[in-house]
Order: sequence, then C-alpha cells, then structure tokens
Amino acid sequence: MGETIQSVERAAAILRLLASGPRQLGVAELARALGLPKGTLHGILRTLVHVGFVEQDQASGKYRLGATLLHLGSSYLDVNELRTRSINWADALAGRSRESAWIGTLHEGHVLVIHHVFRPDDSMQTLQVGTYLPPHASALGKVLLAHDPYGETSVPPLEPFTKRTIVDPDALEAELDLVRTRGWAAETEELTEGEVAIAAPIKDSRGIVVGAIGIRGAVERLATDGALHMEYVSYVRDAARAITRDLAR
Amino acid sequence: MGETIQSVERAAAILRLLASGPRQLGVAELARALGLPKGTLHGILRTLVHVGFVEQDQASGKYRLGATLLHLGSSYLDVNELRTRSINWADALAGRSRESAWIGTLHEGHVLVIHHVFRPDDSMQTLQVGTYLPPHASALGKVLLAHDPYGETSVPPLEPFTKRTIVDPDALEAELDLVRTRGWAAETEELTEGEVAIAAPIKDSRGIVVGAIGIRGAVERLATDGALHMEYVSYVRDAARAITRDLAR
Repeated sequence: MGETIQSVERAAAILRLLASGPRQLGVAELARALGLPKGTLHGILRTLVHVGFVEQDQASGKYRLGATLLHLGSSYLDVNELRTRSINWADALAGRSRESAWIGTLHEGHVLVIHHVFRPDDSMQTLQVGTYLPPHASALGKVLLAHDPYGETSVPPLEPFTKRTIVDPDALEAELDLVRTRGWAAETEELTEGEVAIAAPIKDSRGIVVGAIGIRGAVERLATDGALHMEYVSYVRDAARAITRDLAR
Repeated sequence: MGETIQSVERAAAILRLLASGPRQLGVAELARALGLPKGTLHGILRTLVHVGFVEQDQASGKYRLGATLLHLGSSYLDVNELRTRSINWADALAGRSRESAWIGTLHEGHVLVIHHVFRPDDSMQTLQVGTYLPPHASALGKVLLAHDPYGETSVPPLEPFTKRTIVDPDALEAELDLVRTRGWAAETEELTEGEVAIAAPIKDSRGIVVGAIGIRGAVERLATDGALHMEYVSYVRDAARAITRDLAR
C-alpha cells in the first residue's frame, strides 16, 4: 500500500512540475527536479501518457501536460458548489458595474480563480479561470487572507508586482485588519499598473469565509484621485451578501 | 514497476469516473464501478486527496474532483501550441462574423473545445473550453472525423440530440465525403435547436489536420430558409487557412 501511494504521489509531482512553467520537460530534467532515477520516471511517464494526462512531443521527445487534464478541470468546475451558486450573481455584478467580475478561493497559498465574467463590452479579454493570483497583491486575496483561520498564505517574502504592492509583512497585517473591520478589500494598482479591484467575502452556512467575489477595472473608471467610487464597493458587497444568503439556505 | 503503473492507472480511472457525472461518489460506488476492493481504493483516494486532485465532502464523506485539476487544466491551455497560435485568428473571426468562435481537436472520441471566443455583444455566455462536443453532431466534429486517419470516432450508435442529428452511419459517411470534397462542414440544428455552425480544418506543417475552427450562432442570423449565408463560410475558411499558414512556418 505504501508503494502504491508513493507512485501516485510521484505522478502528481510530475504533473505539477509540468504545470509550473511554459516549457516542455525531458526525462533528465524531470529526474533532476524530482530527485528520482530515470527508470522510475519512465514507468510513471509511460502510464501518464497512456491515460492521457501527459503528452510526449514527437519531435523533441519531451513531455507536456495532456488534454485529459483540461477536461478534468472543466468537470471540476461543474461540481464546484460555490461556483455553481455564484454564477448568476457574478453575471449580475458584471452587468451592474460594467466591469469584469471574479470569484476566487484560497488554494495552496494562491487565489484560485474559479469564475470570471468578462466586462460587458466588445473588447477582447482572456479568460482567467484556473489561474492563480497572488493573495497579498489582489483584492480577492486580501479578503481570503483576512479570514483565513490558518494564516497559511501570508508568508514572506511578499513578491512585488508594481511599486504599490504591499511587501512589508506588518503593513500587510494592518491592511488585513482594515479588511476585517470594514468588510471589503481594495487593490489599487498593486498587481497591475492602471488596474484597481474591489472584493468582499462569501460565507457558507456556518459563517466561514469560503470565497471572495469582486470586480476589476481601469483606475480611471473605478476611482478618482486614488479614491474608489463607493457605489462600486456597494455593488460588490451586495453580490457577496446575496451569495452568502443563498449558501445559507 | 508493474505495481507502480497499476496504482497510477487506478488513480486516473478514479478521476475519470468522478469527472463523468455531476454527482459526488462514495467509496462503495467507486469500488463497484471500478471492480476494486474498498481497501485498495482507500489508499489511492487518501493520496489523491493529499495531492489536491480529489476533495472529500465533510458532510457526506463522498469524493469529488479537486481544485488542483482546474489549475492543471488551465496550465495545459498555456502550453497547447495549436491554441496559442490560433487565439488571435479566433478573436478576428468572432469580430468579423459577430458570432462566437470555437477551436476544437479530437480527443478520445470527442471534440475537445480548446478555445472559445464569446459572441461580441453584451449577452451573457458560458465558456465551453474543456467541454466535449459530439463529433457526428457538430461542425467541428465533422471536419475532424472527415480527416481522421484512424476513423476512431465514427462508431455507432450515433446519439440523437435533435430531430436533425445524423444518426445513420451511411448518411454520416456521405456527409463526411461532402466535407472532404468542399473543405468545410455545416451543422444545421443537429446539436441544438435553433443553432447552426460552420467549421473548417486546420493543418500542421505536414498537412495533417490537427484541429478545426468554426463559428456558431442562431439559425436566423446565419441562414435563410435553411441555406447558410456563404460569407460566413468564407470567414471561417479564411481563418482556418490563416492558422494553417502560421503553423507551417
């Protein structure tokens, strides 16, 4: 049984490694990164290719993630209750604010985007579902960190994304206190220059914060002289409260 | 080594089973479906929960897909070359046709949607990336079937989705002949009532069809008295040729 578990864990480690960068990886690179003999890796890789979780490039012989994972990820979204019960509210929030709406949850120290509604205009936008946002540099993340009972994700060093990213742990703690006190979080060009975001917590029937919902848009539209327009904050908090009420039923 | 491969294969089978329906599954259900002893399953499930591929519902004790898979699926898209090199052309196609644009490839007998650009208007649309379409009932699928050297996906029974779905294997063969002859495929309310679609093949540098691109929209906009407007066909074929040229570089 121990052996069985080990091979599954190793298979998972290979998949995570392949997901961690844009490159394809060869057996030697994987062996070095995971500290495993090539022979062991070959057996697991052959199996992962067989089940469609990994694809081998015909030309280079290197490995990359397989198409089956895309379908599994899509299936995950179908059964995610928070997402299923938030979709209509996120649509309404995007419609009301005329900005993109986002729903995220904490996952392994990151904010995992589980829903993203495009800004309702004709502009081309890239869907961010499944991507990670940095907790300390995003409004969604600040909401989740502020209510994280384990405090697992506020570990320094805090990576700077712009000049305004909060990189001092004490400053971040003060910011999270503010989020807890006023019930919502702001992100003012801390992740991307020219963009601001607002987020509020979604609670389950036990009152535990299980996710965050928010909007993101150009600083010119959402703020004046660095001050957020409070009607946008009210839209976000209305949506968060509506979902929280729905989850309590 | 044999044992190692077996446990990874079993883990993959569990994930596919959890992805195959909207329900969460208990150990007994999984054991029955996979023909494995509960003890064996417990060890694999514990490992899958540990690596984040599976989540256990606190209340029911049942299992569902985990959030890590969503991130892996999203990472797959980042490294998918066909998608990466098609995105701009799909955007342009959606802009030109004012309809939603789709890119798909054959995967395990299904059409896997690897890119989806929303119809450029304010309407709320659900992203279909990662979902499967039936090959015999979709324009994308007909293009892929018509050029599938293995013929692996045209196996009856052909499931009916509307009254117009092609369910007779001979009729489907004739339809695929037509697709090969004229170089594009039509879908006229065969998958969804009121919707039509058009698709054309994308070829790689060896001339092998590696995907299909197309548009989908209301029959009232794209056709008159059941006949497709040919300018839409030209938009789709232009996009397919442009991507094919790009891939040949």
